[in-house]
Parts: sequence; structure tokens; C-alpha cells
Amino acid sequence: MDKEKRTEIGTLGEFGLIDQINKQVQLKQASSLKGIGDDAAVLGPSDKLRVVTTDMLLEGVHFDLSYTPLKHLGFKAIAVNVSDVAAMNAIPTQVTVSLGLSNRFSVEAVEELYEGINLAANHYNLDLVGGDTTSSRAGLIIAVTAIGEVGEEEISYRSGARQNDIVCATGDLGGAFVGLQVLEREKQVFLSDPKMQPQLDKYPYITGRQLRPDARMDIIHELRELKVVPTSMMDISDGLASELFHICKASGVGVAIYEDKLPIDKQTYDTALEFNLDPITCVLNGGEDYELLFTINQKDFKLLEKHPDIHFIGHVTAAGDGKVLVTKSGSAVPLKAQGWQHF
Amino acid sequence: MDKEKRTEIGTLGEFGLIDQINKQVQLKQASSLKGIGDDAAVLGPSDKLRVVTTDMLLEGVHFDLSYTPLKHLGFKAIAVNVSDVAAMNAIPTQVTVSLGLSNRFSVEAVEELYEGINLAANHYNLDLVGGDTTSSRAGLIIAVTAIGEVGEEEISYRSGARQNDIVCATGDLGGAFVGLQVLEREKQVFLSDPKMQPQLDKYPYITGRQLRPDARMDIIHELRELKVVPTSMMDISDGLASELFHICKASGVGVAIYEDKLPIDKQTYDTALEFNLDPITCVLNGGEDYELLFTINQKDFKLLEKHPDIHFIGHVTAAGDGKVLVTKSGSAVPLKAQGWQHF
Repeated sequence: MDKEKRTEIGTLGEFGLIDQINKQVQLKQASSLKGIGDDAAVLGPSDKLRVVTTDMLLEGVHFDLSYTPLKHLGFKAIAVNVSDVAAMNAIPTQVTVSLGLSNRFSVEAVEELYEGINLAANHYNLDLVGGDTTSSRAGLIIAVTAIGEVGEEEISYRSGARQNDIVCATGDLGGAFVGLQVLEREKQVFLSDPKMQPQLDKYPYITGRQLRPDARMDIIHELRELKVVPTSMMDISDGLASELFHICKASGVGVAIYEDKLPIDKQTYDTALEFNLDPITCVLNGGEDYELLFTINQKDFKLLEKHPDIHFIGHVTAAGDGKVLVTKSGSAVPLKAQGWQHF
Repeated sequence: MDKEKRTEIGTLGEFGLIDQINKQVQLKQASSLKGIGDDAAVLGPSDKLRVVTTDMLLEGVHFDLSYTPLKHLGFKAIAVNVSDVAAMNAIPTQVTVSLGLSNRFSVEAVEELYEGINLAANHYNLDLVGGDTTSSRAGLIIAVTAIGEVGEEEISYRSGARQNDIVCATGDLGGAFVGLQVLEREKQVFLSDPKMQPQLDKYPYITGRQLRPDARMDIIHELRELKVVPTSMMDISDGLASELFHICKASGVGVAIYEDKLPIDKQTYDTALEFNLDPITCVLNGGEDYELLFTINQKDFKLLEKHPDIHFIGHVTAAGDGKVLVTKSGSAVPLKAQGWQHF
């Protein structure tokens, strides 16, 4: 993007802007019969189930543009919705994107945002088929709806976990939360002395986890190849503990997870200590990791046992046994779901 | 709603609020396999086409809460999306609703908004299957996605209008725009002297058109019974002239419409004059009527001829003949698309 160039949105108008965006879109999915340009997008018939999920990102609540590049933000807005599609064990096919833009945003800024959106659309092999663009009096608003497909025998609900199932988590946890602490600290340093340059080079992994999360479609495709259907699944967006509570409630079960099995990256661990945060609390209650939490029947364990990025963190118990964390010293303490409460 | 009661959203938390809303929802559509409560909603397989549309309403841009009852607003947020589904000649089946709420809103206010949303869901026989609720720093944000179904032989795109087709418009036009002028004037009167009571009783029809529009699903069902498939269709949300431009562009045709055929309600006409507005300009360029504009093959004219609420306003011409309004005096003047530009 040419940083020097600034075209006011008003010069193109709403329709001009949509036309501009429209030009960049090429439909890839056979089921996308009509994308942007009519009153609604049109999807072909399907003998599979379709899943639908929606998420809204608001400036000042979900992101801070002082340290969030617009391209990353566009990618993230799609990724967090794809993560919900993945959590149903489904494959994403289409998205719609609605934008509220204040006059602070130029055409070039909108194009940068769409660069990230289109990058994500290609990465996840889905089509941008519609949306709505409007002016906003209050910063940037991004509302995305994602649609995906899944066979009736393959879908994973939150409610399918059964006693003795194995609890699995992908990737590592807590990084996005600790990365956010770094970004917020560097912002404060910059605000108090604008001559200070933010020091983010020391924390590339965790700041990347916060700014540009990747939905775990790779895992979904691998599970499908191995013919493993999780008995239950969620994405980890509000924090591991909170998600475990959701699965236990929906499935009518309890859970035991083991502190020494929880996956944490070294940079997350070290930086948490630097911030005087308990690394395990960051793993349990940090949000926005967008990893997958799922349960499998024990018969499927052999198929996943050697997977480098799936961790077996515990097992499903009877509802009466509660939800416990077994510490390294071997004592069982009740799990607390703190999650992310926006209110 | 008990006006005295005010429960802060914080006391319930995000999940408490969603649970509260969830309790009121009963799924009616056979294709809604799973609604609110998992990572995504789940729709059953379908041998029909599915249409998807999304629209975002922002406080201060699309609505003014000083004269918009929350219940009406909830209804309208659904209706404007259903109108886009109708414009494809499709039947709506599901919606998702994402809300951004500032702490100015109480649980009771959110419930009132959902009363309108649920009323619309029942009125249009569709299911609320998902959404996202978050805090907002800047007023109320409502993002709705609607899904509908239509057979392959029944769908109407903007691009199907052919020379000699008849141009049809439903209901009457301009009312929502003139109603908005009344609401804005009464607001100014109230702001300058709060002892003055707003005088809206004189204008019940047009203020209703603005505050509580109804998508024309009745027309879609009637067309289906008569086996009339419009060659092209749009909903009239930005203004008749602007929508005619869209259809002409997408279909590669021109159009001639007749001033004396344009449908206008007496209250719209009289009030426009009261505001020194040209009634015909209000009909052509006033927005938010949410009526349907469509074209039919001449062979279908006999089937619709006697319909009390479908007006035959002109005919499709060759692209080279341009887009013209034939005035009462018989002269052809070029149509101008002013539409509603949010930027």
C-alpha cells in the first residue's frame, strides 16, 4: 500500500467502494452460484449439513488499531469465524462481511483490510459472497458470517462427550493473552514517550498469536483423513477452562485435566513470568487462542497418539465427579471458568 | 415491559444474557437442526438453492433511538433482511443476530429489542438460530444475516429483465422518507422545548412506514401460487430510481416509467407538500420503503392485472433508449438515481 495516497471514501460512494471490492473477488467453491452484486448471495443445493456462525469485532473492544495492522485484522475477522466452523468439524465454504467505517478510514485503508480478508479467504479456500458497507460514527465495525459444510456422520456438537473419552487440545494455549499484555504495555510506553520505539521483536510468536490467529482447519482435514470424528468439540476462544465448562454442561459430564499435560509455548511461559502472571492461569483462562478442544473415544487414541500438535490433557468423568485440575503435586482442585466476559 | 425495572447487563454477564434470550426461542423450520447454543447453527440438507444476505444497522446512522421504540427496531432489523430474501423470490428460513450494546442498555431494553426480533421471526415464520452479543463503546449495533430457500426455476436475479417486460412495483412509495421528515421535525421541536409533545397522530401511516416496515413476503407467496416468476427483482430500499438503475445495469436494458403510474399514498403526498418536497421526487428517491420492484414477461400480465397492490409503472426498453420518466405532460426526461449514499 502506498502510504502517501489517501482517497476519501466519499469520492467513490458506497456503491463505488463495493464495486471496487467486488472486482477482487473470484468465486472458488462450486456451491457459490452468485456472490456479491444482487440482493443476496446464492448457494447451490447440498446433501450435507450447513453450519452458520457469526461474530462481530468492534474497535476499542476487540481490537486496538494503534497496534493492529488492518491487513492482520481483516485476516483475523475471517479466521475467528472459520474457527467456529472448524469447531463443528465442518469445512468453511462462504463468508459475508459487513463493515461500518468512520470517515477516518480512506479507500486505501479499506483496501488494506480487504487484502487481509482476501488472504484469509484464499488460505481457507472459501468465497466472500456478500456484505454490507456503511458509514459509522464510532470507529471500525466488522461483522462476519461464515457458512460451512459437514456430513451428517461427521458433525461434532458440544453435547457428545461421554465418560472415559479422552480430552484433546491442539497447539499451545495462553499465547494470545500474554501477547496482548505485551502489546498493551508497549502501547503505554509509546503513549508516555512517543520517541520510544515499541519492543516487539523479543516476542514475535505471542504477538503473532494475538494479531493473526489461524483457525485449525489443518487439524479438521487430518481428522477427516484418519476418519476420527470427535465425540464433542469447541474452539478455544474464551479460555480453556470456560470451554471445558461448556462441554461438560452440554454433555452432562465432568472432566479431569492434568496440569503437566497442558500445552504452553516457552515464550508464553517466560513472558507470563515477566508480567508476574501465573502461566497456568494464562493457559486456563487466557482467551483468543483459537485452538480446538475436543474429546475422542478411547478407540481412536492410537490414531492420534503420535500427532505432534494434538495434546491429551485429561479425560471425561461422571457429572458427579465435577470439573477438576490435577496439579503437578497430584492434588485435584476445582476448575474455575473465568473466561472472557465482555460486560 | 415494566418501565421501573432496570437490570444491568453486567449482573447476568454475556452468557447469562444469551441464555436468557435462548429460552425464548423455539425452532419452527424443519431445516433448523440446531439453533443457538453451539459454536455454529446447523441446517439440514436441501435440494433447493439457499440465499444469504446481511445488513448492519447502526445507531446515529440508520436509526435514532429518541423516536424509535426498541421493539419496532428489532422488528425492522429482521424485516429489512427478509426484504432482501424476498427480492430473490425466496422464502426466509433462518436469521442470526449480532448485537453490540453499550452499558446504557439494560437487560430490560435488550429484552424489548428481542421482543421485536421474535415478533418478526414469527411473522415471517423463520428461526433465530445464532448470534453474538458484545459490549459496544458506541451505541447500539445490530448485524443480521438472513438465509432463505428457493427452487432453481423460481429464483429472480437482477439480471433477467428483457425488452418489453412490464415493470411492477408493490405498495406505495416515498412514505418512509416523508415519515422520517416528520419524525426529525418533531424531534427538533421537542429538543428546543421539551414541554412540547410530539405531534405524530396526524401521520400514523408514514411514521409507521419508517419505524416498522414490513417485507413483502405476502407478494412472494402470491406470485408463487400464481406460478409467476419475475424475470428480475429487487427490493426498494435505496429509492425506486436507484433500483431501476441497478436492474438496467445488471440486465443490459433501458427502462421507461410513467409519472402517472407511480404509486403514492395520500398521506405521503399531502405531507410531502407540507414539507415543500416534490412528491414524485420522494417516490423516486426516498429510501426504505422495502417494497418490491420487479419485471414480468407480458404473458404473465393477465395473472396479476387485477392485483390491488401491484402497480404496472412502465416497461423495459433497449439499453440504447436509456432510462426515462415519462411525465404527465407526455415528455420523456432522463431518470436520475440519487439513492441513499451513506458516505
